[in-house]
Amino acid sequence: MEQPKKCKVAVLGAGSWGMALSKVLAENGHDVKIWSRPSGLLEVNEINEHHTNKKYFQDVIFPESITATTDLKEAITDRKVIVIVIPTVGIRELTKQLEPLITEPKIIVHASKGLEQKTHQRISTIIEEEISEEKREGVAVLSGPSHAEEVVVQDLTSITSASENEEVAKIIQDLFMNDYFRVYRNTDVIGVEMGAALKNIIAIGAGTLKGLGYGDNAIAALVTRGLAEISRLGIALGAEPRTFMGMSGVGDLIVTSTSVHSRNWRAGKLIGEGHDITTIQDEIGMAVEGLSTVIAAKELAEECSIEMPITEAIYQVVYEGANVSETVLELMRREGKAE
Amino acid sequence: MEQPKKCKVAVLGAGSWGMALSKVLAENGHDVKIWSRPSGLLEVNEINEHHTNKKYFQDVIFPESITATTDLKEAITDRKVIVIVIPTVGIRELTKQLEPLITEPKIIVHASKGLEQKTHQRISTIIEEEISEEKREGVAVLSGPSHAEEVVVQDLTSITSASENEEVAKIIQDLFMNDYFRVYRNTDVIGVEMGAALKNIIAIGAGTLKGLGYGDNAIAALVTRGLAEISRLGIALGAEPRTFMGMSGVGDLIVTSTSVHSRNWRAGKLIGEGHDITTIQDEIGMAVEGLSTVIAAKELAEECSIEMPITEAIYQVVYEGANVSETVLELMRREGKAE
Repeated sequence: MEQPKKCKVAVLGAGSWGMALSKVLAENGHDVKIWSRPSGLLEVNEINEHHTNKKYFQDVIFPESITATTDLKEAITDRKVIVIVIPTVGIRELTKQLEPLITEPKIIVHASKGLEQKTHQRISTIIEEEISEEKREGVAVLSGPSHAEEVVVQDLTSITSASENEEVAKIIQDLFMNDYFRVYRNTDVIGVEMGAALKNIIAIGAGTLKGLGYGDNAIAALVTRGLAEISRLGIALGAEPRTFMGMSGVGDLIVTSTSVHSRNWRAGKLIGEGHDITTIQDEIGMAVEGLSTVIAAKELAEECSIEMPITEAIYQVVYEGANVSETVLELMRREGKAE
Repeated sequence: MEQPKKCKVAVLGAGSWGMALSKVLAENGHDVKIWSRPSGLLEVNEINEHHTNKKYFQDVIFPESITATTDLKEAITDRKVIVIVIPTVGIRELTKQLEPLITEPKIIVHASKGLEQKTHQRISTIIEEEISEEKREGVAVLSGPSHAEEVVVQDLTSITSASENEEVAKIIQDLFMNDYFRVYRNTDVIGVEMGAALKNIIAIGAGTLKGLGYGDNAIAALVTRGLAEISRLGIALGAEPRTFMGMSGVGDLIVTSTSVHSRNWRAGKLIGEGHDITTIQDEIGMAVEGLSTVIAAKELAEECSIEMPITEAIYQVVYEGANVSETVLELMRREGKAE
């Protein structure tokens, strides 16, 4: 299993992270075709004609070698690697559409961060359920502390490529790796996907504390306890404990919980300031994955009998109308005990 | 071993953290006597007469029950608990002075964060070497994400109390615990002390990246790799891996590496901006523990054959005149590999 120096890659999703990953790939010399749903036709034309995507990046000119289409078949034909970068809610439907279009085995890598509603499936599991084994050369996930806004200006970024098949993880590593985009390898897909999905909940919590006026000490304490509850659930589901200490665990958690670039953090700040979920979705205007992940995580924690007090508190505030300042105070004042 | 509801406590050190811990104790109803060296006579008088310490806190009025002295014997007489909160460099001398003054067994807790130069000793080890066993009822360490500036305004803070003797850790927990100051217990003194000391080095690194103009992705990656190298050295010295996931590990690391309140972070930022160590010490005007800890940590890592690339890089820049931007770039671009 070897990839050519110049690889043909399909990037499914023209959001901020899809654009940023396409730019990395094109700068590494690969041939990139972006796919967007038909409703994104204007953006597709903008990418092809002006090499920009001003909805997300006002000042960035993308490499001319990146082309775009709204035709899914065209997007993946002759492509060795498919990168899926769309919100979790659309993954099942997209992979169902993909399956009949695939004519030869593909390496499928995703960079989405969430859990499916109701089924609580991780994204690689959805991919494996919907795309038959003979059409997959491997499945991988990319995750780590990586604001798209920084990646497109070539600021230094380090992330993790994980696949149960280490050779596949290595191919993805080699595909993306360059001087400013550093890729680590891991074989613990469960740990990487659970960390990626659940950290958005903690980021909402950190933003909520900020919105309520709490300081850095309180936020660091919440993030620390958040890392513990994320790890507890992940480990119960089969993850390696050490993965939560890596780029896709604590790394992504830090950047998402302390940076104003993060949508989940911003959603949390609005919650802390007393806004309701509809106002928040409107205000942010992009998918806030954590707001749906919190539902799946709460249910999953109950199924596995894992204590997740932060997840539970955010669920109560967002979906059960609990008073935000009282709930947070109660959460933070839980009896001190052994760590 | 039980402490009375109202306990007599000596706090040795009238710096920002000593003042903040004294305030917590006094607000919990304990009788607090602060000690400062004779050169701090003006501050001692200010505390006794005006209940302020404007060098550190312009707007804070401390409880009148806090008194201060420059007489070490007076400070500890009749005190059940001694809290040591001075820079690491002064611990050996202070404990030597304490030993002959102690007439009945004391619980000794410290809240300092460093390693002794040359010997590389942790602080509790220095205490145990200098104060005879029959004069100690127990030794403990307090550490966690806790900017003094936030504690004095009663912002929510969570920290760890660690002692090899869990009963002692519990006494310290009960002594400090209140509605805004949450204390967790741990028996892994090595892990808590190593985390506390070494995180200052990583905070310098994070500040350095900021000073050089790097973004949040790069800083999160450095902090993640920093946590890994701290853990490696700590575990080699006998610490429990999980301690580095707690308040005194990742919690303190986050707050110190992302907050402008942190002296070590500010020192790093000045390094990134190209200033030398003398200018930095002058500019910050308080002890920057990380700048001395990096020497001890580098030597200790060599002794234990543990790879600590961030520690090594900061040492090279601060003490060997290495070019800061080249060194950082080299550090961040080390070959991608398995996590």
